[in-house]
Amino acid sequence: MFKYLLLGVLSAAALTAAVPASAPVYGLVLHGGAGVIRPETLPPGQEAQYRAKLQEALDAGYAVLEGGGSSVEAVIAVITILEDSPLFNAGKGAVFNADGICELDASIMDGRNLAAGAIAGVQHVRNPILLARAVMEKSEHVMLTGAGAEAFAKQQGFELVPNEYFHTELRRQQLEKVRKRETTPAKASAAILRPTDEKHGTVGCVALDRAGNLAAGTSTGGMTNKKFGRVGDSPIIGAGTYASNATCAISATGWGEYFIRLGVARDIAAQMEYRGTPLAEAAAATIAKVGQLGGDGGVICLDRAGNIAMPFNTVGMYRAFRLSNGETAVKIGR
Amino acid sequence: MFKYLLLGVLSAAALTAAVPASAPVYGLVLHGGAGVIRPETLPPGQEAQYRAKLQEALDAGYAVLEGGGSSVEAVIAVITILEDSPLFNAGKGAVFNADGICELDASIMDGRNLAAGAIAGVQHVRNPILLARAVMEKSEHVMLTGAGAEAFAKQQGFELVPNEYFHTELRRQQLEKVRKRETTPAKASAAILRPTDEKHGTVGCVALDRAGNLAAGTSTGGMTNKKFGRVGDSPIIGAGTYASNATCAISATGWGEYFIRLGVARDIAAQMEYRGTPLAEAAAATIAKVGQLGGDGGVICLDRAGNIAMPFNTVGMYRAFRLSNGETAVKIGR
Repeated sequence: MFKYLLLGVLSAAALTAAVPASAPVYGLVLHGGAGVIRPETLPPGQEAQYRAKLQEALDAGYAVLEGGGSSVEAVIAVITILEDSPLFNAGKGAVFNADGICELDASIMDGRNLAAGAIAGVQHVRNPILLARAVMEKSEHVMLTGAGAEAFAKQQGFELVPNEYFHTELRRQQLEKVRKRETTPAKASAAILRPTDEKHGTVGCVALDRAGNLAAGTSTGGMTNKKFGRVGDSPIIGAGTYASNATCAISATGWGEYFIRLGVARDIAAQMEYRGTPLAEAAAATIAKVGQLGGDGGVICLDRAGNIAMPFNTVGMYRAFRLSNGETAVKIGR
Repeated sequence: MFKYLLLGVLSAAALTAAVPASAPVYGLVLHGGAGVIRPETLPPGQEAQYRAKLQEALDAGYAVLEGGGSSVEAVIAVITILEDSPLFNAGKGAVFNADGICELDASIMDGRNLAAGAIAGVQHVRNPILLARAVMEKSEHVMLTGAGAEAFAKQQGFELVPNEYFHTELRRQQLEKVRKRETTPAKASAAILRPTDEKHGTVGCVALDRAGNLAAGTSTGGMTNKKFGRVGDSPIIGAGTYASNATCAISATGWGEYFIRLGVARDIAAQMEYRGTPLAEAAAATIAKVGQLGGDGGVICLDRAGNIAMPFNTVGMYRAFRLSNGETAVKIGR
C-alpha cells in the first residue's frame, strides 16, 4: 500500500516536471532572420552575442506563457526584445533605405479570431510590433502605412523617436557597400538591386498559449538600400505572418517579393486546412516552392498540437524554440 | 475524295465560328464594386450609364483576347476604362480620404509565372493599374507605396496628374455625409468609421487568354474618409488579387479588412489546389466565411477551363463577363 502511494506521488512529480501527453503543450518559436549566416564566419564574440539575445527573447516569451499570458503577449515580449537589439534588422539596428533612413514594417495576427494588425514604412516608432498590435486592437483597420500610421501612433499615445535612434554603424557600412556595388557598370542597369548576398535579418515569433491560442508576429527594416517605398512580406498578412487556431502560426523571413507572390504563410496553413498535410511537410513544401521560383528565406511554424517546423533554404537562420514538454534549442546554422 | 475535302473545309469554318468544346475557352469577368446597389434605386439614367460603361470595358477586354492579346493586356484594357470613368471608386471618381485627397491602390498578377505588382497610397498617377503593371514588369519589387511609388512612376516616364484630376462632386458629398455622421455623439467614440452603408466601388478584372494564361487586377480609391494611410485588400496579393495558371484568377471588392484577414483570393485558389474544390463552390465558401466574420463584399473568379463565379453577400455587385463560347451578361443586382 505504502509502496503504491509512494509510486503515485513520484509519478505525479514526474508528470509535473515532464508534462504528460494529456496536458496541453504550450511554447514558442522565434527567428532573427535567414541568410548567409555561418556561425564560423561571424566576427569573434558575435555568435555568443546572437545566442545570448535569442535566449533572452526566448526566455521572456516563455515566461509570459508559463505565467498564463496569451500567445499575443508572448509574441510581443519576444519581438520587442529583438527590435531593441542592434543585432537584428528590426527596430534599432534596422537597415538603411536608399535615402539613409530606417523604414520599418511589422505585423501581428491572433489565431483565436483572425484579428490582425500591420504597419508599413514607419520611421519614428521605437517598437513597430507594438504599433501593429495597436492597429489590431484599437482600430478597425488591418494595415496602416507611412506618415498616416505615425499619426495613428501619436493618437494612441506612442512616443515617437527620431530616426537616428535606429541607426547603427554596421548598417551604414552595409548601405555604402550596396551603393558602391550598384554604381559599378555591370550593375548600373539594374534599377533596383537584388538582396542576394545580404542577410535577411527580419525577426519574428509564433506562440501557443496554455489556452490553446496561436499568434504570430513579424518585424523588419526591409532591404538595405530599398527605394520607392518598397514593402516586403513582413507586414503582409498571409505572406510574412499568419495565425489561425484552425491550423498554425507562421512568421517568415527572406526575400519578401517571393514570399508575397507565393503567400507563404497562408500557403502552409492552407495545405494543413484543405489537404490535411502535417505542419512540417507543408512548411517544407512551401519553402521548396520559394526556391523553385528563385527566392530564398525561411519560416518558423507552430501548430496547436505543439508541432514545430523551421525550414529554410539559406545557409543559416537565427532561430530558437521552447516547448512546455521540455524541448528547447537555440540554433544558427543547419 | 472531293467530298472529304469539302467536309474538311466546312469543319474548319465551323470551328472558327462557334468554338467547339475541344477549343480552349477564353474570356473575362469584371466587377465595378459590391455594396448597397439596387438598380431600382439608382438615380434616373444611372443604371443605363453603369451598364454602358461595364459593357464598354467588357468589349474592350474581349477584343484584346479575341485578337490574341494576353490576359494581362485584357485586364489592363478593362481596368483603365473603369478607372477613367467617374462612376467607379478607382482612378477618376475615387472616394476622398479624411484629408479630402484621393489616395489610390492597385495590383495585378500574372498567372503564368506568379509575377505580381502592387501600389498603395498614390495620389498623382492617372491609372494606378498601369503603375502596378510597371512594378510587376519593370522592377524587382512587388509592392511600392506612397511618395516612393510616385518617384518610381516618374522614373518610368509616367506623367503625374494633380490630385484634383480624380475629384468629383458626388464623392465630395459622400465625404461630407460621412464626416457629419462621424461627429454625431453616438459615433464620436469610434475613431475610425465602418463602411457599412457605403458602396464599395472597387473595380477589377480576371481574364483567360487564348494561350490559356490567367491574370487578375484590382484598382480602388479605398474607403471614404479613410485615415492613417489605411490600406485595404486591393493592393494585397492573395487578398484582393490573385492569379495562378494552376488554379484560377480572382479579384475582390468589399470591406477590405476582412478580405485581408481571410486572404480571400488565395483562399479560393487554395481550396482548388489542395482539396480539388470546384471554383464556384470554393468561391461561395470563402464569401460565406467573410460574412461569418462580419464582413461583406464579393469576388469575380475565372479558372483555366473557363468556369466563372461571381458570389457576393451584399445587395448588389456591378459585374459582367464574356466567354468565347458565347456566354455573356452584364449584371447589377442579384
